[in-house]
Amino acid sequence: MSSQYSKAGVNLKLARNVKANLPALLRRATRPEVLGRIGAFGGLFKARFPACREPVLVASMDGVGTKLRVAVEMGRHDTVGQDLVNHCCDDIAVMGADPLFFLDYMGTGKLEKEVFDGVIQGLAKACAEAGMALLGGETAQMPGIYAAGDYDLVGTIVGVVDRRKIIDGSKIETGDEVVGLASTGLHTNGYSLAREILFKQAGFKMTSRPSELEGESVGEALLRVHRNYHPLLASLRRKKVVLHGAAHITGGGFIENIERVLPRNALLRIDRSSWNVPPIFELIRRKGRVSEAEMYRVFNMGIGMVLVVPRASVERVRDEASAFGIESCLIGRVARGRREVMLS
Amino acid sequence: MSSQYSKAGVNLKLARNVKANLPALLRRATRPEVLGRIGAFGGLFKARFPACREPVLVASMDGVGTKLRVAVEMGRHDTVGQDLVNHCCDDIAVMGADPLFFLDYMGTGKLEKEVFDGVIQGLAKACAEAGMALLGGETAQMPGIYAAGDYDLVGTIVGVVDRRKIIDGSKIETGDEVVGLASTGLHTNGYSLAREILFKQAGFKMTSRPSELEGESVGEALLRVHRNYHPLLASLRRKKVVLHGAAHITGGGFIENIERVLPRNALLRIDRSSWNVPPIFELIRRKGRVSEAEMYRVFNMGIGMVLVVPRASVERVRDEASAFGIESCLIGRVARGRREVMLS
Repeated sequence: MSSQYSKAGVNLKLARNVKANLPALLRRATRPEVLGRIGAFGGLFKARFPACREPVLVASMDGVGTKLRVAVEMGRHDTVGQDLVNHCCDDIAVMGADPLFFLDYMGTGKLEKEVFDGVIQGLAKACAEAGMALLGGETAQMPGIYAAGDYDLVGTIVGVVDRRKIIDGSKIETGDEVVGLASTGLHTNGYSLAREILFKQAGFKMTSRPSELEGESVGEALLRVHRNYHPLLASLRRKKVVLHGAAHITGGGFIENIERVLPRNALLRIDRSSWNVPPIFELIRRKGRVSEAEMYRVFNMGIGMVLVVPRASVERVRDEASAFGIESCLIGRVARGRREVMLS
Repeated sequence: MSSQYSKAGVNLKLARNVKANLPALLRRATRPEVLGRIGAFGGLFKARFPACREPVLVASMDGVGTKLRVAVEMGRHDTVGQDLVNHCCDDIAVMGADPLFFLDYMGTGKLEKEVFDGVIQGLAKACAEAGMALLGGETAQMPGIYAAGDYDLVGTIVGVVDRRKIIDGSKIETGDEVVGLASTGLHTNGYSLAREILFKQAGFKMTSRPSELEGESVGEALLRVHRNYHPLLASLRRKKVVLHGAAHITGGGFIENIERVLPRNALLRIDRSSWNVPPIFELIRRKGRVSEAEMYRVFNMGIGMVLVVPRASVERVRDEASAFGIESCLIGRVARGRREVMLS
């Protein structure tokens, strides 16, 4: 019996087959709070937070942007799943929260088993590493919205924080120091510009190895996995190291993201010469003749997260980062003034 | 100063301007549990559930599928936001849960203020009607994944249910009756097939008014808003009317969705002649010469939700549905047998 629906581009049988592997893929990405089973209309998670006096859920939803196009062109689909999970972990970690569970959505032009498996493997790996349950997901075949090999990947994270431990930047004060934590690369931002410059203007291929990248190919450099800073932040919290503010450097770059957590009476100065910008950013800047201002607005420039800490905490924060294998740098300071982030 | 990033198709300034209206749009879609403010890295929601002895979070993520293409071609963007919210409400309502908060993601080729405003208005309206907070969202400009006027729309719902009140179908037993609740139209499923048949094969336009639709245009019939059955289910729960199982008829149709909640020893028979299939489905079936089996696999055929209830509850369930303006019908019964849904 021929199916009209599959002629219209939607294959229900393939969708079922593709999902047959799910239980095995998800085995590690779970937690004791999860009830019920895969295939229910919703995922179930016990709302018990014994470690919190006044538990507050923290939720965020995000995608990985056009980093997906790099994954598609490289034919490598496990890293974007990790990017998505780690990005979301960082979004709630800056508020002081611990991740609980994650849901994913994949919209595709044409469902391909290999792609689906790769993506889910990456999601499950990163969820397991983050101590989080992959609670549910949706795969939508949408011919006419997505081209055949294309897809979009979206995730939602839900975590928890004790109300009095929420980090919201309100404690930031004059004299606080700004610690920059190293990113692994572009993380998940600025890919439309990076692709435009590296592939269209400079004419690189994914496999090109310009000397600036010291042996790494352009594709490899662009696919480096977004770093999850939550384990470091959770460890600092356990050790009662005080943080006044934290900002995840994502779309909008340094100024917009740090401004999100600055109180009215704080002017935060960042000294761009205080850290070495990794070669991939220099390559993009030079090949595209992009202004410095725009570079710091679009890219993380080597700093994936910014912590604002009282001077007394700086040493312990940097030691702890180092113990987690994360390079850190003093990149600025908070002065009295109107809410503003100044780069010099 | 010309921006390279905007030449690459991503306009950060437009993104900021588009979002300037958000506080006004979201004013009604909130709840007392919401803390913090728009613009933080994550949305905050107090995890206090005084009405539940053992609270369990229920989460689901979904899109609206290629119904979006109809919205884009009709130039009408507020209804798909409502579709998304109501669809998600139904996914957790069938498990016995009440909605708490919602997050949305919009991936676009080119961000357009009018589209964004329409979508958010629809989301906020439906969230407010559902008594749910619109806690966060993300808008991603992804040239190279989406065509200029296209977008995908994804939502995540988080709700809560008291553990002993979870509806999971395990209580379904021989002799239970099956109540079908009327849908408003296609809801959010089968649009790829419907579009293929109505526009490509039958040659209709959005504005065509075939006599079968009794004055409604094809576009209007296709854009009808997904019904939210949660208020009805919540009312039944308050009145202590017993439900043994509930299934949201979405992708996969009658058989797959009802099987999701059937226990092993239950065979559920549905009599297709027990309700009148609305004209839009008949039109699709006839124009596309689609088999009956496929129609019931792809579309809801006029039944958006199926409730499995003990015979003693049938009257009260149907009266209550009627009080909520929802037509209902006895469409089948549960017999002894191996887990199966039979349509005859």
